[in-house]
Parts: sequence; structure tokens; C-alpha cells
Amino acid sequence: MTERQISQAVIRRLPRYYRYLGELLENGVERISSNDLSKKMKVTASQIRQDLNNFGGFGQQGYGYNVKYLYTEIGKILGLDKTHNIVIIGAGNLGQALANYAAFERSGFLLKGIFDINPTLKGMTIRDVPIRMMEELPEFVQNNDIEIAALTIPKTKAVEVAELLVDNGVRAIWNFAHTDLNLPKNVIVENVHLSESLMRLSYNVNRYNYFNAKE
Amino acid sequence: MTERQISQAVIRRLPRYYRYLGELLENGVERISSNDLSKKMKVTASQIRQDLNNFGGFGQQGYGYNVKYLYTEIGKILGLDKTHNIVIIGAGNLGQALANYAAFERSGFLLKGIFDINPTLKGMTIRDVPIRMMEELPEFVQNNDIEIAALTIPKTKAVEVAELLVDNGVRAIWNFAHTDLNLPKNVIVENVHLSESLMRLSYNVNRYNYFNAKE
Repeated sequence: MTERQISQAVIRRLPRYYRYLGELLENGVERISSNDLSKKMKVTASQIRQDLNNFGGFGQQGYGYNVKYLYTEIGKILGLDKTHNIVIIGAGNLGQALANYAAFERSGFLLKGIFDINPTLKGMTIRDVPIRMMEELPEFVQNNDIEIAALTIPKTKAVEVAELLVDNGVRAIWNFAHTDLNLPKNVIVENVHLSESLMRLSYNVNRYNYFNAKE
Repeated sequence: MTERQISQAVIRRLPRYYRYLGELLENGVERISSNDLSKKMKVTASQIRQDLNNFGGFGQQGYGYNVKYLYTEIGKILGLDKTHNIVIIGAGNLGQALANYAAFERSGFLLKGIFDINPTLKGMTIRDVPIRMMEELPEFVQNNDIEIAALTIPKTKAVEVAELLVDNGVRAIWNFAHTDLNLPKNVIVENVHLSESLMRLSYNVNRYNYFNAKE
């Protein structure tokens, strides 16, 4: 691997390639041309070739891509061949939804702990993982090699808890709290702001209404 | 409003402007320069001016932006001054998390119904909204002016249910199922693919590991 800078736009598309290739594999497809992959994914064939060339390219002119090889290689680029220990902070509906999502485990994300401040949840388990109280968090994170934390707590607490996590060695935050976290540059933050997603939907619905009303 | 094409990149940033302006309002800030807004949001001031100029601009040279006015106007652009009737399909943890998220209501998204196939959930309510069975869906959508449906069901059922919704008048899908929906062009789809988000996080964690190991 070279130190070449891969644009976030490419990285944004890789998981989608991975998903499509996984579906092809499930359907027993062994080889696919960039044209066919392009039609399936509604991305241009040249876009696909360009994207994959960032990683050295995986196709052979005229032969198309070996689906299994490409799937495996993209998995490696995405780090899915390694395991990552993850904790979830906040055992509300969203935290429970994430905890119950078994597919994460298949991609190498191992749920090690769930934390909450609500004492009535103490000792309950989700998929055999016990819910612990926040006081235990610092020691737990240090002792269990926790790399990633999912934050599904209200925004008022999110900044403080994120700092606590980072101070204890967490290096990536999957942030569902509706606020930006101001963390050191070497900490990776992936935001999922659901209300912003809903606003984009709202914008597009209204824009559609507007143009249709005019016609 | 003109028919000028606004790029999706701008639309992607608007909800974030809206959130920051809302926080300024809560803190009693009446006026802000694009420079100060820029520092707060970590976007360049010229980016902010450019983005807002797409909608006619809202600032006055040397005076900065009137926070309340700008907040209100961006809200209008996003369609948040109107109400939208929404249903949630799938009353699992994720569906329940969305149903319980009261902030949506404040932005004009009115939860009218929750649907599931599990008969043991029938008649249960979430925030006074009853969970109904899927058989009732077509009539309910037609009779209650449902514009938006959130899909929090497994991918195996998502395509079929999305088509049913669209056939009955739904015009926008907030898709949490891990698949692409192939719907008519006039149907708006906003995807929230959580596992792809986690893969981007994984990519960045691994990339960071790689470069740090080299140093």
C-alpha cells in the first residue's frame, strides 16, 4: 500500500462496492465486467475503474473482475479482515438496536460492553453482553482494548463522554449524538446525524412539491 | 425561489447550519458574522457566504447575519415550516428509537402510524401511536395523507414494501434497510446505511494504524 491520499468520496463508495460484491458472491457469480457491475450499481464503469485503480486496480482487461478476489481485497482495504472491539454508550432504543445488529459481528466488530447511567438496566444483557454502569467505563475501556465507541446518548452529555473515552484510549467514535465532538485530530469520528438526514429528505420533498406545482 | 439547481453538497450542509443557528438562538445570540460562524462550524467563511448566496444570501456586508432570520429562512428552505405525515415500517429497536425521538415532531414530522408483521405487537403504542399490522398499511397510507415512510425492516422485505408504499401514494422513503431501492425517479429516497458508516470508520481506523506503525 502506498501513502497516496485516497479521497473521502472514494472511501464513501467502497462499502457499497463491498455490499454489491457480497450479494454477487451469495448468488454464485464468479466474474463480472466493470460494465455489468456499473449497470447494477448505477455508477459509470469508468468511475468503478478509477476508484479501484486507487488501490492498484484488480481487473484484467477483457476479463472483468474476479468477484471473490475483489470482495476480499476491498474487505482488507476497509479493515474488515481484522477485529475491532467496540462498546456502546447508551442502552436506549438506538443503543439496543445497534447491539442487536448481528451483522456487525460478521464484519469483525466485536461488541464488548454496553454502558448506561440508568441503574434499573444494570446487569441486563443484550446478546449476552451485560449492561454496565458508567462508573466502570474508564477501567473497562483500558482493560479490554476498546478501539471504537458508539455514542447513542443525548447531545448534552456527548462531548464530555467522548472526551472520557478518548482519555482512556478509545480512538474512534461512532457518533449518533446530535452535536459535533471537538476531539483531537488523531481521533476518528464518524457522525450519523439522523435529524440532518431527515431534513435533507424534507428539502427534497419540498423541492419536488414546488417544481411540480409549477408545471 | 428560482429554479436554479442547488448541489447536493450544499443541501448536505444546510441542516448543519440550521443546527448551529438553533444553538446560537438558544444561547441568546442575535447577530453573527460569517467569520464567527465559520470558526464555530469549522467551515470557511467564504464557503458559508457561497452556500447562502444560493438562496439569495441573507447577510448585510459588515453587519453579519441576523441569527433568528437566517434560522427561520433556512428552516423554510428545508421545508421545516410545513408538516409532513410519516409512518414507520418495522417496530423493532430501530423503529422504536425513531418513534421515540420527540425532536422530529418539533421539526414538523408528524408520526401517524407504526407498522409491523409481528402480531404480538398489535395494539401496543409508542408515544400514543398504535402499532398496526401490515395488512392495514395500504388503506392507512391512502387515508392519512402519508408523505414519508421510514423503513426499518430487513433488506429481504424492503424492496417489496417500498413498492407497496409508493403504489399507495408515499413519495419519500427514509431507508434504513441495507439495500438500494429501485423506485421511480420521482420518489425521493434518503438512505441511512449504518453498516456502511461503520465500514468507513473501520477504514479510517486501519489507515491510521497503518501510518502510525510506519512512523
